Amino acid sequence: MSKDIKIEAITDMETDFAQWYTDVVKKAELIDYSPVRGCMVLRPYGYAIWELIQKELDSKFKESGHENVYMPLFIPESLLQKEKDHVEGFAPECAVVTIGGQEPLNERLIVRPTSETLFCDHYANIIESYRDLPKLYNQWCSVVRWEKNTRPFLRTMEFLWQEGHTAHETAEEAEAETLKILDIYSNFYENILAIPVIKGRKTEREKFAGAKSTYTVESMMHDKKALQGGTSHNFGDGFAKTFGIQFTDKNNKLQYAHQTSWGVSTRMIGGIIMVHGDNNGLVLPPNIAPIQLIVVPIAMHKEGVLDKAKEIKERLSFIARVSIDESDKSPGWKFSEAEMKGIPLRLEIGPKDIEKGQCVLVRRDNREKYTIQLSSLENEVSALLIKIQKDLFAKAKKHLDSNIRPATSIQEFESILNEETCFIKTMWCGDGACELEIKEKTSATSRCMPFEQEELGDVCVCCGKPANKMVIWGKAY
Amino acid sequence: MSKDIKIEAITDMETDFAQWYTDVVKKAELIDYSPVRGCMVLRPYGYAIWELIQKELDSKFKESGHENVYMPLFIPESLLQKEKDHVEGFAPECAVVTIGGQEPLNERLIVRPTSETLFCDHYANIIESYRDLPKLYNQWCSVVRWEKNTRPFLRTMEFLWQEGHTAHETAEEAEAETLKILDIYSNFYENILAIPVIKGRKTEREKFAGAKSTYTVESMMHDKKALQGGTSHNFGDGFAKTFGIQFTDKNNKLQYAHQTSWGVSTRMIGGIIMVHGDNNGLVLPPNIAPIQLIVVPIAMHKEGVLDKAKEIKERLSFIARVSIDESDKSPGWKFSEAEMKGIPLRLEIGPKDIEKGQCVLVRRDNREKYTIQLSSLENEVSALLIKIQKDLFAKAKKHLDSNIRPATSIQEFESILNEETCFIKTMWCGDGACELEIKEKTSATSRCMPFEQEELGDVCVCCGKPANKMVIWGKAY
Repeated sequence: MSKDIKIEAITDMETDFAQWYTDVVKKAELIDYSPVRGCMVLRPYGYAIWELIQKELDSKFKESGHENVYMPLFIPESLLQKEKDHVEGFAPECAVVTIGGQEPLNERLIVRPTSETLFCDHYANIIESYRDLPKLYNQWCSVVRWEKNTRPFLRTMEFLWQEGHTAHETAEEAEAETLKILDIYSNFYENILAIPVIKGRKTEREKFAGAKSTYTVESMMHDKKALQGGTSHNFGDGFAKTFGIQFTDKNNKLQYAHQTSWGVSTRMIGGIIMVHGDNNGLVLPPNIAPIQLIVVPIAMHKEGVLDKAKEIKERLSFIARVSIDESDKSPGWKFSEAEMKGIPLRLEIGPKDIEKGQCVLVRRDNREKYTIQLSSLENEVSALLIKIQKDLFAKAKKHLDSNIRPATSIQEFESILNEETCFIKTMWCGDGACELEIKEKTSATSRCMPFEQEELGDVCVCCGKPANKMVIWGKAY
Repeated sequence: MSKDIKIEAITDMETDFAQWYTDVVKKAELIDYSPVRGCMVLRPYGYAIWELIQKELDSKFKESGHENVYMPLFIPESLLQKEKDHVEGFAPECAVVTIGGQEPLNERLIVRPTSETLFCDHYANIIESYRDLPKLYNQWCSVVRWEKNTRPFLRTMEFLWQEGHTAHETAEEAEAETLKILDIYSNFYENILAIPVIKGRKTEREKFAGAKSTYTVESMMHDKKALQGGTSHNFGDGFAKTFGIQFTDKNNKLQYAHQTSWGVSTRMIGGIIMVHGDNNGLVLPPNIAPIQLIVVPIAMHKEGVLDKAKEIKERLSFIARVSIDESDKSPGWKFSEAEMKGIPLRLEIGPKDIEKGQCVLVRRDNREKYTIQLSSLENEVSALLIKIQKDLFAKAKKHLDSNIRPATSIQEFESILNEETCFIKTMWCGDGACELEIKEKTSATSRCMPFEQEELGDVCVCCGKPANKMVIWGKAY
């Protein structure tokens, strides 16, 4: 890998979106491929994005009363098998440890694909009374799912995520928790990642293995395909009955706990890339950018330039995450690299600027240039970072809103998707057979039944029978 | 598990230290046992201590230029086998994945016991020139080692840790890095965990599998056994030669990189328990206590008491991590629980205190009580927290210093250890055969060759041949 590779052009996104994506993740130094099939190395720049995601979400979870714990990496096979639907959902994707300490194991251990069963086992141990509820636990960890076709961030054999698992006294409380978390997710997507989402409920076919209901936030990528952004599941008391999670209520009666689980993963980074990126590389919303502004000194070896650049960096570090590129590369090379890495603002300062008491700011998202008096630098930078964040969201929102097409028949549905990839909204009768038929004919899956329903008609797009649910469909990552 | 279990007495530490330890980890709600042999559930209170450890160390690593990354959980068997000494050290302890996606694997995957091989593979990919050096990477993750006998925190099949891996241009830089990290560890132990350490170098027998030299911080538990606190390894260019990590230097000549690795783990929490704990449970140094002060309202249902208690909690939350126990349990129960959990300060406030404008503060470590005017509360609490931290360190330091005995013959060595467990310091010739003989005769192992050497004599404690190294020996966890 040559040091110059980053300024070589990346594949044009209109020519080959998949190759563009692969070029960006590699050349922005987010990841490296690893010697393990389907597993990636998260490099410092990629991991720094994940750390910002963690910091923001973790504080929201804690503000709403959640506590972090850590469960084992392994699940005994018999424990995973306790809940029928759950094991059916995950068994095909498991990595299995059969040897430990050079001896074959009596019981095989599954590398956790998700930790419902471990949390349930623990809850059965520690919950006795209504006084012990609610339990609002979360863990940050990695999970393993044996995927055949993998792509960095979007589908990897191992990925980093958070998984929340809660237990409550009543069905109402569990449902409220499920929706509260969905709000945390959608606010995070919209305000921090600048990615608009559609909030809704998954159909029976698409819900989580073992859940009573699954809620989701769905987003649209630049290529108009869908990415499931995060899910929040209400288990009712199904898992509690299987695992014996009981408590004595205020009337001294034995009751089953009601549970939820919810998670988001490093997949979000794939979403950031595919929503905001362009043909010069990554474009990061300021709120999630490890470096929000990079100072590039021009004619760096002229007297006073580097000192001034460092002074500016110091000043701005009180209001933003700032870096300086002092390497011996050319300014052009530095600009390209800063663009590839999606740094929201570039600050150029050279001898002439210093003479005039000014500098140049360049926005990554639209390349607009501003000549700024150094005296008002803090105000201008703060305002621009806020503006970039807002503009990125507005652009993505327009993209989403203008690419959802209604369809009233399966023929119309197919012909729209034959012309272009987009989201389709239709009425649906609620029958899984219709859902399957649509998937087979169009390869679009139901993304969700949005909370914001519209009355597009009163019959199912597929079978023509009475229908009162609107569904959003799309081809998905 | 009854709600009252926590106020039942725990085993006396003088009667059965191991059982006392087990009681404390369970009843202070640090961990729960899991359905996987040798793996534990880190409960919210235990994980909160780990989060404080992470926050503090992570900031020190970042201040000194280190960046976080994430490497895969799995290591292909062939990659682990590349470095001969390394694989010999870890092969007996491996958990092995042989099945993925319901198919037997072509190549078995080892669940990482440590990640040197993955970092080396990655470094070989990304290092080309001296401009790419140093690489100062760290990762926070869990690792798996198939241990036969496990104890919570001290020796578990899976544990959480950080592992730093760095690559440098020169041998000198690698050595400086190894020692810089050892300083970060020893400062952390002494200033944050209030645990005094002996810094030194490991013998050939005790060094890390594949390292050129291993440095360590060693600490003494309450039972005078040793706990290895953290290690920092200099690999020289051995791994670089095996994995082909080469760079062109400033003279355009191809060179091998020099590497280090270093780590500390959740084992530190075992150290905190065994250094500071007492017969009432955990004792946490304020700097690592998730709750530094707990407010216990007395006669809580009398008018104004709970309001006042909450007001005090609010006031103090600007200077400390504060909690309030508003549960309907008795004050006595609350005192016991706060003691079991090792909360450094307890604040009692009842109707009479309020009348007099005062409250009572009780130190966890020595149970000293203070009547404090509410007007000066912030100053008193701040001062007491600092004092407790200092006193805990001083007490542990005295315990360490007064329990290291010199020995000049193997007979003396044995007879000291027959009387009491303690550390032994002796001269040593440097021969591994003597080290082995001492271990077999006394079950004490060489903890380290301390940086602060003393001249106890000029012959080896074991063979009587000339010796110029002083070694600290001890029975170890």
